Amino acid sequence: MVFQIHILGSGSAMPALHRNPSAQYINILERHILIDCGEGTQLQFQKFKIKPAKIDHILISHLHGDHYLGLMGFLSSLHLMGRTKPIYIYGPTELKDIIFSQIKASKTYLNFDINFTPLEAKESIRIFEDNVMEIHTIPLKHRVYCNGFLIKEKPKPRKINKAIVQEMNVPVAMMHRLINGEDWVKDNGQVVSNRILTLDPAPARSYAYCSDTAYNVNVIPLVNEVDLLYHEATFLENLAHRAKQTFHSTAREAASIAAQANVKKLLLGHFSVRYRDVSEFESEAKEIFENCAVVNDGDCFTI
Amino acid sequence: MVFQIHILGSGSAMPALHRNPSAQYINILERHILIDCGEGTQLQFQKFKIKPAKIDHILISHLHGDHYLGLMGFLSSLHLMGRTKPIYIYGPTELKDIIFSQIKASKTYLNFDINFTPLEAKESIRIFEDNVMEIHTIPLKHRVYCNGFLIKEKPKPRKINKAIVQEMNVPVAMMHRLINGEDWVKDNGQVVSNRILTLDPAPARSYAYCSDTAYNVNVIPLVNEVDLLYHEATFLENLAHRAKQTFHSTAREAASIAAQANVKKLLLGHFSVRYRDVSEFESEAKEIFENCAVVNDGDCFTI
Repeated sequence: MVFQIHILGSGSAMPALHRNPSAQYINILERHILIDCGEGTQLQFQKFKIKPAKIDHILISHLHGDHYLGLMGFLSSLHLMGRTKPIYIYGPTELKDIIFSQIKASKTYLNFDINFTPLEAKESIRIFEDNVMEIHTIPLKHRVYCNGFLIKEKPKPRKINKAIVQEMNVPVAMMHRLINGEDWVKDNGQVVSNRILTLDPAPARSYAYCSDTAYNVNVIPLVNEVDLLYHEATFLENLAHRAKQTFHSTAREAASIAAQANVKKLLLGHFSVRYRDVSEFESEAKEIFENCAVVNDGDCFTI
Repeated sequence: MVFQIHILGSGSAMPALHRNPSAQYINILERHILIDCGEGTQLQFQKFKIKPAKIDHILISHLHGDHYLGLMGFLSSLHLMGRTKPIYIYGPTELKDIIFSQIKASKTYLNFDINFTPLEAKESIRIFEDNVMEIHTIPLKHRVYCNGFLIKEKPKPRKINKAIVQEMNVPVAMMHRLINGEDWVKDNGQVVSNRILTLDPAPARSYAYCSDTAYNVNVIPLVNEVDLLYHEATFLENLAHRAKQTFHSTAREAASIAAQANVKKLLLGHFSVRYRDVSEFESEAKEIFENCAVVNDGDCFTI
């Protein structure tokens, strides 16, 4: 029942040798997702020994280079590695032409299909679901059209309380209805509440990625009570004016969103290259929201 | 009188942690040139402590990703570093749209001009010259339209033979004509040969970059007697059929071109990622052309 977030890149516009631009690999119940794909992301897969062939979904937040310039190289390498199964890419409308014009110029005929879903909605929409998880956009406030992403498990069925069910002789045919929350109506008309016969399932887990964005309270209801929130913190509060100018957030602002949304844990990333030591981001955020951490390339978080 | 070639990337289509895709930085008499710009090239500048701000000319051989996917990130970083002087880019026609559509999508207004020269000629053409050097294309034979580049010093003026000139009382006004090769015609009509009054200048140096290409004898006259030839060698001879299929060369073929063109020294690069140890490329080539070397990222060659 794995739900893991691997940080492949946690830097911002200006890449550095110690911190690659944005990219994250998510494994949710063996669904494999890449969020953003800054230049050099394919080498981060090699560096951290993660197999990129597993990826089925690529979510691109916006068209600033540090979030997508690794995409063409990544696709090309999947091709060279022999991929044949289709890949699903979700991103701003213009990304489609950017991808296909370059494929055309290179006269490369990929052995797999690219299914592109253009994102242009201003409100949060569900962009994917299957039987165990769903992906929603989180509209962000940036210099260009930009979405974060909410990835969450579907609510799980209730669990049969085996001891009680056995003791009360509940018919086997009833089990499927019990896990879906129905009460048991006996032949004599007596109703046994579902609560007596079943146990709460493990709560559905959720992860939200919010980068890049200015401080934006509209995000709060969309990330309400998520287990893990990654929120960009490009600057410290003493450069709040730069954050405002560039539609980025400070560590304190990220923490404020986390606190108001009552999330379980906050991760901070997308640090400006001017900060070599990022420990101050954590201390600044902790004044407002205690359960937070700065991330580094190669970190892995399990929900 | 510097003429240096810095290898920033010497790999091929599939990047590896130890070998970046193609890129070279050339300093010829303080003219600063970048040839090709594979993904991650901007980090190679950081890694090898070379200042990218100096670059004025970017030459892109062809539109396979391992030769140009680092370009957008490189341009973006020049912008963030405060560049204002124009940059000159030379590459296949489609590259212009690839660059400008991405700049438009990012809503970034660069602080410097990009002067783009589309390359589409099938024969060798001169694409740049100033008072000390020139750049010519070398049409290559690849799966897509592709050029190598010849960078050479202009022929230098002859050197005054000070001792002779003094002894013969040659008028000062004559000096400029002497270095341009004129004979000295005395007032009495007697002709003194330029050869007596001047010395040969240092020979004009030259560097040729040939990647990517199938074995192509048309290259030979264009790189005739260059001081240094970089020729791709993606495969060893035992995979000559793969080289042929993919329009690449083997080490032996590269050496054969070097031998027929009578170059002074040969460099081999653009190795397929399947070869972890590339020493065999050197030994295979040396059977045909002795003065050759395999390159690694970070190597610097002085002519």
